[in-house]
Amino acid sequence: MRVVVLNTGTELLLGDVHDTHLAFIAREILPLGLRIEERRTVPDGETIRHTLAELFSRTAILFVTGGLGPTTDDITRDVVADLLGLELRQDPQLLASLKRRLEARGIKWTSRIARQACVPAGAQVLANENGSASGLYLKVNINPQIPSPHLFLLPGPPRELQPMFRAYVMPILRSIVQVPGSIERRLYKIVGIGESTVEEAIGEKVLAVPGIELGYCARPGEVDVRVIGEPHAVLRADAIIRNKLGLWIFSTSDETLEEVLVELLIKRKETLAVAESCTGGLLSDRITNVSGASAVFLAGYICYSNQAKMSALDVDPKLIEQHGAVSEPVARSMAEQARMCARSTYALATTGIAGPTGGIADKPAGTIYVALASAGSEATVKKFFFPSDRETFKELAAQAAFDLLRRKLMSIPIQ
Amino acid sequence: MRVVVLNTGTELLLGDVHDTHLAFIAREILPLGLRIEERRTVPDGETIRHTLAELFSRTAILFVTGGLGPTTDDITRDVVADLLGLELRQDPQLLASLKRRLEARGIKWTSRIARQACVPAGAQVLANENGSASGLYLKVNINPQIPSPHLFLLPGPPRELQPMFRAYVMPILRSIVQVPGSIERRLYKIVGIGESTVEEAIGEKVLAVPGIELGYCARPGEVDVRVIGEPHAVLRADAIIRNKLGLWIFSTSDETLEEVLVELLIKRKETLAVAESCTGGLLSDRITNVSGASAVFLAGYICYSNQAKMSALDVDPKLIEQHGAVSEPVARSMAEQARMCARSTYALATTGIAGPTGGIADKPAGTIYVALASAGSEATVKKFFFPSDRETFKELAAQAAFDLLRRKLMSIPIQ
Repeated sequence: MRVVVLNTGTELLLGDVHDTHLAFIAREILPLGLRIEERRTVPDGETIRHTLAELFSRTAILFVTGGLGPTTDDITRDVVADLLGLELRQDPQLLASLKRRLEARGIKWTSRIARQACVPAGAQVLANENGSASGLYLKVNINPQIPSPHLFLLPGPPRELQPMFRAYVMPILRSIVQVPGSIERRLYKIVGIGESTVEEAIGEKVLAVPGIELGYCARPGEVDVRVIGEPHAVLRADAIIRNKLGLWIFSTSDETLEEVLVELLIKRKETLAVAESCTGGLLSDRITNVSGASAVFLAGYICYSNQAKMSALDVDPKLIEQHGAVSEPVARSMAEQARMCARSTYALATTGIAGPTGGIADKPAGTIYVALASAGSEATVKKFFFPSDRETFKELAAQAAFDLLRRKLMSIPIQ
Repeated sequence: MRVVVLNTGTELLLGDVHDTHLAFIAREILPLGLRIEERRTVPDGETIRHTLAELFSRTAILFVTGGLGPTTDDITRDVVADLLGLELRQDPQLLASLKRRLEARGIKWTSRIARQACVPAGAQVLANENGSASGLYLKVNINPQIPSPHLFLLPGPPRELQPMFRAYVMPILRSIVQVPGSIERRLYKIVGIGESTVEEAIGEKVLAVPGIELGYCARPGEVDVRVIGEPHAVLRADAIIRNKLGLWIFSTSDETLEEVLVELLIKRKETLAVAESCTGGLLSDRITNVSGASAVFLAGYICYSNQAKMSALDVDPKLIEQHGAVSEPVARSMAEQARMCARSTYALATTGIAGPTGGIADKPAGTIYVALASAGSEATVKKFFFPSDRETFKELAAQAAFDLLRRKLMSIPIQ
């Protein structure tokens, strides 16, 4: 069944607001075997009319978001009624509940708001528990020659659309689909190797599995591999992917690398500290974004100046003098000193040259040392070269540092 | 001129990735008097072909994003060449630069990568300084009866597309538009007050200016106000906005609050340190994302545990015992100690309860103290209550802390 999403809203096309409905709807409907095959974004106004008219003729399920509010540019309801020749009737129940809602919030009643109680004849109202704009569902019957699409009109704000979708849209979709497809989706999140290496390792073999769909998505320091297909095909692809990429897969769900680390540390009742030079707080920030991080994350030392490396972490000034701040011995010392200062099980350290300025001949911008200190031996240090913009450099460095710890916690050899 | 954006990528329609190109392109082209009138998102594969064919006939400027990579699902280049009957030729210069790029990074050369050096005859290559997929520009000449659209093929990753767009696409657009429209857009970035307060202050008065378009965009701890219109109308709106919101406006360009701070500190030859508890490194991370930060940012102390507050910053254990770690005296001490340790001009400190767990009766989750230490007097402390999810809480706290420093540097009274 051809599923299309139509986002309406001038603010989307001006770049003031990012749409999140597409991603939300896509994930909700996939278990029903439904996939979005196209998304359109159009401004408020008459474009909505001809876009709807065009889509009605070649869509089985159409989700329209936005344009149900009380202001003058909210015209979706009217355009749909007009286009389909349906009368707009004021729903007394809806009107009463709108009045109650506004009263409870001390908001003044205006005639504009009353428009939100208007329903095209034959449409089903989808209650909005988080706002004043109700959703609407109707079966379009404009042309007897073509199958009638199912039309859902949904409010623009995500915190209104999402609960409405789960509570009222999903049950209707289930009755439309009847026998849900047996399609399955798996995700593999990979760290430590690049997109083309991943494809070389698994691409041909996975695509040789009949009925499998394979996709890649590269982010700084991470490649996401996605397979979609019938369960038995997905199972075959899964075996190939795990066999070829096992040690590089850090998650098969939607976790971040830092979520995986926090979970592992909690399980092992171990703790972490970080000493960051070039990553400037990104490691700490990402770790502390994870709920529960306070059980395992003890301290971060952001040593941007050499002075700070020496005073906060007691790194031997001679080491910096002799090898430079961006060097293997300094990275090692930072990790070991951070572990001592914070009394943690592990400590990660980064020292490098983010650029764009600050590179020197044998250490160009993009050079970075990552170190991991743990009990019983001296800290492991790895050197990387990530010539890129400042923020990407920091992301790549954070992924490399986190992967060092992941490998340690999973007892995977560090290459 | 009708401008359309076509996003390609199955990952977008599956909800794995959020598109950011629409917003970026919209903001870049508006000063040329250009606005995006439609956006479509289609999966990788043959849908691209008929969507392109359809759009060619009713578009003046078409931006296509994604599908230029080395993997098998990257087919944009091929589909365009095929559709327009253009030969794909390997560009020797491009091939050589690709090889150099991979060598520098120690990435293995594969034949798939060589596809990225293929250019449709007559197309202009747009250099990619941050990735291997070059962009392409060509004038489509498929039907002598209709004006030929300008076609831009751009890479999917934002960190590749954005610099390419600014460096190479904008100059071409300028030559296409020739006489840019006289439409103007101004942006006001506001910190310290919420969206409804902003609207109450300026909404009616600005909308009373004929021909003005007014928009708001609220982010955690920040409200962006946008006005669009003819220059004289924008000037009138500008006077109203500055008069009503002057002290809350931290930028009228696209700067972040941390960029404003780094710039001010550099000008004043002053330095900063931070002591972070509940913000967990976000302040440091944001500051060090700014190029040039190393001149002003000396050190960050991420004291997640009480132990770290005491050992790294020498905060008096009695203060913590007596008032609790989340308290005005501890926030003040953290800021003052961080300033002493790092020998910086200023130090910011945060201590609070991010939640969702950890709240207590008189200090519920969402409570936070922000402190600013500087020479000559004891540190200023402000208390806030930000009951929200973890990441939003951190963002709100960071904005509040940065605003404290901004007001100090601008000699604006702290309320």
